Amino acid sequence: MSHNTFGHLFRFTTWGESHGPALGCVVDGTPPGLAIEAARIQHWLDRRKPGQSRFVTQRRESDTVEILSGVFEGRSTGTPISLMIRNEDQRSKDYGRIAEQFRPGHADYTYWAKYQGNRDYRGGGRSSARETAARVAAGAIAREVLNHLLPAPVEIKGALIQIGPHRIDRGAWDWAEVENNPFWSPDAATALVWEEYLDSVRKAGSSTGAVVEVVAKNVPVGLGAPLYGKLDADLASAIMSINAVKGVEIGAGFEAAALTGEENADEMRMQDGQVRFLGNKAGGILGGISTGQDVVVRFAVKPTSSILTPRKGVTTGGEEVDVSTTGRHDPCVGIRAVPVGEAMMAVVLADHLLRHRGQVGL
Amino acid sequence: MSHNTFGHLFRFTTWGESHGPALGCVVDGTPPGLAIEAARIQHWLDRRKPGQSRFVTQRRESDTVEILSGVFEGRSTGTPISLMIRNEDQRSKDYGRIAEQFRPGHADYTYWAKYQGNRDYRGGGRSSARETAARVAAGAIAREVLNHLLPAPVEIKGALIQIGPHRIDRGAWDWAEVENNPFWSPDAATALVWEEYLDSVRKAGSSTGAVVEVVAKNVPVGLGAPLYGKLDADLASAIMSINAVKGVEIGAGFEAAALTGEENADEMRMQDGQVRFLGNKAGGILGGISTGQDVVVRFAVKPTSSILTPRKGVTTGGEEVDVSTTGRHDPCVGIRAVPVGEAMMAVVLADHLLRHRGQVGL
Amino acid sequence: MSHNTFGHLFRFTTWGESHGPALGCVVDGTPPGLAIEAARIQHWLDRRKPGQSRFVTQRRESDTVEILSGVFEGRSTGTPISLMIRNEDQRSKDYGRIAEQFRPGHADYTYWAKYQGNRDYRGGGRSSARETAARVAAGAIAREVLNHLLPAPVEIKGALIQIGPHRIDRGAWDWAEVENNPFWSPDAATALVWEEYLDSVRKAGSSTGAVVEVVAKNVPVGLGAPLYGKLDADLASAIMSINAVKGVEIGAGFEAAALTGEENADEMRMQDGQVRFLGNKAGGILGGISTGQDVVVRFAVKPTSSILTPRKGVTTGGEEVDVSTTGRHDPCVGIRAVPVGEAMMAVVLADHLLRHRGQVGL
Amino acid sequence: MSHNTFGHLFRFTTWGESHGPALGCVVDGTPPGLAIEAARIQHWLDRRKPGQSRFVTQRRESDTVEILSGVFEGRSTGTPISLMIRNEDQRSKDYGRIAEQFRPGHADYTYWAKYQGNRDYRGGGRSSARETAARVAAGAIAREVLNHLLPAPVEIKGALIQIGPHRIDRGAWDWAEVENNPFWSPDAATALVWEEYLDSVRKAGSSTGAVVEVVAKNVPVGLGAPLYGKLDADLASAIMSINAVKGVEIGAGFEAAALTGEENADEMRMQDGQVRFLGNKAGGILGGISTGQDVVVRFAVKPTSSILTPRKGVTTGGEEVDVSTTGRHDPCVGIRAVPVGEAMMAVVLADHLLRHRGQVGL
Repeated sequence: MSHNTFGHLFRFTTWGESHGPALGCVVDGTPPGLAIEAARIQHWLDRRKPGQSRFVTQRRESDTVEILSGVFEGRSTGTPISLMIRNEDQRSKDYGRIAEQFRPGHADYTYWAKYQGNRDYRGGGRSSARETAARVAAGAIAREVLNHLLPAPVEIKGALIQIGPHRIDRGAWDWAEVENNPFWSPDAATALVWEEYLDSVRKAGSSTGAVVEVVAKNVPVGLGAPLYGKLDADLASAIMSINAVKGVEIGAGFEAAALTGEENADEMRMQDGQVRFLGNKAGGILGGISTGQDVVVRFAVKPTSSILTPRKGVTTGGEEVDVSTTGRHDPCVGIRAVPVGEAMMAVVLADHLLRHRGQVGL
Repeated sequence: MSHNTFGHLFRFTTWGESHGPALGCVVDGTPPGLAIEAARIQHWLDRRKPGQSRFVTQRRESDTVEILSGVFEGRSTGTPISLMIRNEDQRSKDYGRIAEQFRPGHADYTYWAKYQGNRDYRGGGRSSARETAARVAAGAIAREVLNHLLPAPVEIKGALIQIGPHRIDRGAWDWAEVENNPFWSPDAATALVWEEYLDSVRKAGSSTGAVVEVVAKNVPVGLGAPLYGKLDADLASAIMSINAVKGVEIGAGFEAAALTGEENADEMRMQDGQVRFLGNKAGGILGGISTGQDVVVRFAVKPTSSILTPRKGVTTGGEEVDVSTTGRHDPCVGIRAVPVGEAMMAVVLADHLLRHRGQVGL
Repeated sequence: MSHNTFGHLFRFTTWGESHGPALGCVVDGTPPGLAIEAARIQHWLDRRKPGQSRFVTQRRESDTVEILSGVFEGRSTGTPISLMIRNEDQRSKDYGRIAEQFRPGHADYTYWAKYQGNRDYRGGGRSSARETAARVAAGAIAREVLNHLLPAPVEIKGALIQIGPHRIDRGAWDWAEVENNPFWSPDAATALVWEEYLDSVRKAGSSTGAVVEVVAKNVPVGLGAPLYGKLDADLASAIMSINAVKGVEIGAGFEAAALTGEENADEMRMQDGQVRFLGNKAGGILGGISTGQDVVVRFAVKPTSSILTPRKGVTTGGEEVDVSTTGRHDPCVGIRAVPVGEAMMAVVLADHLLRHRGQVGL
Repeated sequence: MSHNTFGHLFRFTTWGESHGPALGCVVDGTPPGLAIEAARIQHWLDRRKPGQSRFVTQRRESDTVEILSGVFEGRSTGTPISLMIRNEDQRSKDYGRIAEQFRPGHADYTYWAKYQGNRDYRGGGRSSARETAARVAAGAIAREVLNHLLPAPVEIKGALIQIGPHRIDRGAWDWAEVENNPFWSPDAATALVWEEYLDSVRKAGSSTGAVVEVVAKNVPVGLGAPLYGKLDADLASAIMSINAVKGVEIGAGFEAAALTGEENADEMRMQDGQVRFLGNKAGGILGGISTGQDVVVRFAVKPTSSILTPRKGVTTGGEEVDVSTTGRHDPCVGIRAVPVGEAMMAVVLADHLLRHRGQVGL
């Protein structure tokens, strides 16, 4: 089963609600001997942290991670690594309305219906994107696995490539630019367009969607366990499980539908005794197995459902109401999804690396 | 682990290669007392069968299913149902070239690299889309589970909505039309466009991609196990595991990225004491849990990699060659992916129905 | 995989080391609406707590449990329940010797060898029986599941039936007696024998083994998923995973080997329209499925490996040494295994109850 | 879930009933490049085959195995290996009585109750020990995994050490003797005692229990994944899942309960730079991890429940009847459990070898 656990040989289990005392994860299957320090995990958590610009939620959380087990004298011991993050800013307020109102686009109604009225409605409870902090922490361990076991470090980088109707110019892609703007945009010019657009969205109390692209370089050939543990199938599951994601594609993705076989086939030549591909429509995966090329995943994030404009909703008692959300929220939750997408890529690759090593060897 | 097994409480394991003696699956977790007959499974297999029009592969396979276990006097016993389909048309030919050449776009190279040169190269072996016959057989059992346990039968229907650059007119959507043309098109006019387009593709020895949409009606509210067994995450994995699929989306999917929160939020009203949604941008899933609306999944299928035009490839020995594929093939493998997508939808829903019944009750 | 996770639909994942900051577990798959309070969990933890008599370890731990997630306003929400217990008495001492010496009978050598020298050696680290506190906490939740879903509460009770060479008189079995002595003995007379025996063992700095019996009453017929999720197979795995356990048996167990078919077959009659068994050699399980009779499990616990008498050991550096263990320890770790055995019985039954409800219904 | 699947990285799924057309298994996770031939699998199947002496069932089955997938040109390809055995001797007879009568000691009642009356009652259906043929076939593949990956071949050998009240003399143990008598007895003298005893049991239409011991030599140190994938916990589950098994022990097993810590601790010395144990009370496993010593498992098999003497039973309609079983049966099913126990040992070790290689490396 996979209620709250992701992965097989390398796996993590998350727990916690938006307004409970804490959240965290248990990371299991880590090889022994990895250098694990809170500060290295914190580095990745800080990239996802709220309140870092006016374009993300103003909730104040330091997201400080504590290592509770599985690490001894700075090294992983192969036993479960328990990571905990205390919730700090559970702003005291009247939750009366949210307790009784189903907000359109949120998981309020479905959790209420599935769990027969038992739910922590405060801030969305378990369905809140705050849970993704635990994913980023697990992803930090996964990155150490990849670095530890492979000769060349796997580089995993994400970027935002679309906000609302505005898409970047792929010709202007510059990875260095990603760290220079609050949107993880690889294209400086588009970042300026987004800034203006998001300011208007934010002021209107509205929200907007986005598209994220995550790329993994130096992935060895051979990862992926056909047919129901294909690398792309596991990536699709990992990414679709992120809050607000509505679509996932690999390589050419939906554009492949319009192509001919000639256009889509990535041709091959030899280079220095190695197979070299002349294109990467496949996004680094053929038959569910990595080709050795960049693994490229793209995903769509829907607009934040918390908006000021009243929308038609209903209550737990079956009354029709107008719902307007006034609290702190991300006008474009896709921005903070970038480090989460990176983390899930890292986790999937680490899991498959261990599985491949188990069945086939390295 | 999930090498060749899909699902949890309701699960199936597939086996077999394109040119081996047979292929099949073991379906486990079926509730007892379901009416299971070979003829009912055959009905669904026949929809996926090759050779039914000039637009699909001309390989001759009756795809006759045998039930080897788990059914007694026409009823499921709750024990594993083993289903086998004999391969009939393993055309005897010289496999010399395919044994040594990596065809661009195929899984030849990745299987060879992963499995250290050990692979059944004939017809793609394990990576062949012939495996999807086993999925359709498992899906037939899954449909019985859904029908047996729910008061209103879940209806699962698929359609092709794009071939190459030609997309259907959604305004003209007519489910009845789907059975009237060899493309599962819900739009008769577009079917004619596709016919002409595919004839030209076929005659050129080329191929093209496609987009499939699968819809499930009467899905009860509450299916889905957050956070890593979300209904949409499992659908994404199920669909992405189908041969040649490069993208999956739920509801509005990638279009959600361009929307505002106002546009995207499916508003709610009450009707006859039930929550009624005024839109379905969510595709029937919020927070990973079904809303009771239609579950809508769309996926992109890449063009068949087997084409006549020579493409640059390499050999197992590291030589550069031109590869041209002359055998029987589907010019648009997306067509036969429609019943496969339906089957995977059925399997995911059946699994989640049992899991939900286990944790929460029905 | 099942590194540190036990169970399927109802499952828990434990983490923590003997001398780390804390230990705990994440319980997943709990049905919604169960009454869950720290005090109710604490009740069971207190039965396993060290320091309650001179016959168990004198380590001072309050074993206070904190609920970090998954419970809202006293009710389970169906989301993961994270439970944490702080370690309080990590007596500061020089761990130099234990860091370098492999103690005979302990897991020092195997952890060191498996994890390539990376291990938390303090107090046995992850291999310490302190981890069983987390099992007891998870078992407390499992008991609520059983009580919540079944009309008659499942009663799970354990007793010690042998210490060293001294076995109880089964004819004198009195469940009420179990709470009246520090050994969980159902036979008052034998408890006195044990007291004297254990005092001599304790004073000699030695240790001794034990046999535990756990009985579950009111288990419904039908639990167990043949063939590799048989109720007895899962119980065997659950019990054998407890520290120091070396044998598990169901019903007549090893004695069945000496019986004839006539002696072993539990005959059946009807009573009030129900099947009634005239014996219970089967221990409540036939073909891996519960019969509705008492489920009876017995297990052997080896003597604590920490003893004063020097034994031949070796060091991490390959030197031969004499090892003598002077710290606090349980002279008969079997005593504190009783509540742990009960907890594992509860967990297995809860998991199978949910699985059965999922596949077959209740 | 683990209904009919055993193992994680190396896993198999079995299917089939006693009197259906066939039975078989799908073995998944096999490393590529192993030499796999039907004849090598048949070698192990022949050891379990019925009808080989007057002390086992006279059912006539050649148990001929067919390889349907996963092997190409004599080598495993890393894809699922489907193995099928046709049932040949489904003696046509009137099943009327068995259809309606619950035989004491059999799984008739529990299957009927669990699966709501849906069951294949012929010859016990799914609960028949015929399913163990599939285990032996899977075990044959597992042996190849162990041989292929390890420098010294793991030797797995089983013996019968008790029939009814008659136990072998361990001092007379001679592995060579095991192949010289129809009981797998390592002690020639006891074999003669058993022969006489079993003849009397057989003539009386009765049956008797047995104890089996399985030993694995050359198991590398480090196999086992604490805490819920301990090597001994997985062995306990694997063995307890075999038909008619009621107890499992490792090393000293239940005898450890009577020992002192001094007696039980296996002391250690160095020899040729390697840790050498001076005893093996642990049965080759400490803390759930293999020590490098022989892994020793012992298990109790209950007497066959099919006996001539009438026993009190009931019918599906709730009538009280006397049940007498006249068909072919094993007077001591423990004999044929020896190769099954060996197979399960092989499967557990192969799975753990791959898992260890995955997490830690080899």
